[in-house]
Amino acid sequence: MNTSRKKDYPLSEIRRHLEPGPIVLVSSAWKGKTNIMTMGWHMMMEFSPALVGCYIWDGNHSFEMIRRSRECVINIPTTDLVNEVVGIGNCSGDKVDKFKSFGLTPVAAAKVGAPLIKECYANFECKLADATQITKYGLFIWKVVKAHVATSPRYPETLHYRGEGVFMVSGRTINLRKKFKPQNL
Amino acid sequence: MNTSRKKDYPLSEIRRHLEPGPIVLVSSAWKGKTNIMTMGWHMMMEFSPALVGCYIWDGNHSFEMIRRSRECVINIPTTDLVNEVVGIGNCSGDKVDKFKSFGLTPVAAAKVGAPLIKECYANFECKLADATQITKYGLFIWKVVKAHVATSPRYPETLHYRGEGVFMVSGRTINLRKKFKPQNL
Repeated sequence: MNTSRKKDYPLSEIRRHLEPGPIVLVSSAWKGKTNIMTMGWHMMMEFSPALVGCYIWDGNHSFEMIRRSRECVINIPTTDLVNEVVGIGNCSGDKVDKFKSFGLTPVAAAKVGAPLIKECYANFECKLADATQITKYGLFIWKVVKAHVATSPRYPETLHYRGEGVFMVSGRTINLRKKFKPQNL
Repeated sequence: MNTSRKKDYPLSEIRRHLEPGPIVLVSSAWKGKTNIMTMGWHMMMEFSPALVGCYIWDGNHSFEMIRRSRECVINIPTTDLVNEVVGIGNCSGDKVDKFKSFGLTPVAAAKVGAPLIKECYANFECKLADATQITKYGLFIWKVVKAHVATSPRYPETLHYRGEGVFMVSGRTINLRKKFKPQNL
């Protein structure tokens, strides 16, 4: 997919891309090293500020990098990156430079130290808003501080994980805008 | 969809249905009344016990019913219920009996007071595991105590909300099971 053209995206609208539930790639940086992990457990928590919760297992190499740096980028890959999504989940950042190994391009973020993944459809720069639930639940509560989204297509083909190695690919669209009460859109 | 045949489902496997990110219907009961709300902000938080986090706005009529009863059922509707999903989100339970108004069938749950919605593909009975994040974030952390899932199809056509009245419908499947390390499935 051509992800070279991206635009700044309103933070209050990022739910359009996260609420459907795609698998994401989380990039991080700490002490001169970068890493990427595959992650499927996340949710919107607030429109404005744009809060996103995500679960990170403390066995992941990314866990300490993210907890210490208090920053990350949530990147949304499309179907053409499915092999990278699986491969990144299969290996550990303590042994592998994932950007190099998977041919992904790190791009400097505007507001955090973690790099954006150029090949992904969307990149959300995150700063840790609340660390209190990390120890008990592995729950990181993020404030998205900058969002970059490809200018096309409008509805990317995203990956949604069903477990056991099976992905669902995002399908057709149903527009019921006229049936909604405006305040419920 | 024929949802009359359901089976008990292993609690540690419910991620297969929630991780892809479907819109869900949350049913509740309090002081002899029932209610249903449409909800899109949820995430898996643990395999075992099966923990699920969800955001509920305190302006929803369901909020107090759920907070006080400390129970709910998370029901997964399929595409044939898209009008009910929108309609339920458009009205408030303080004025409308949603089961009656939308022709949905309440079924007694096994372990909670809230009713299952018969017409939904899956029903997850939930007890509140942690109330500490409700006031600050509207975040309810649930322990799923019983799961019912239709015996077919294996991959239901679910609804995923993109905002602005637009739903994505779950599409085709990619099975990469052979490429995963077993511990990462």
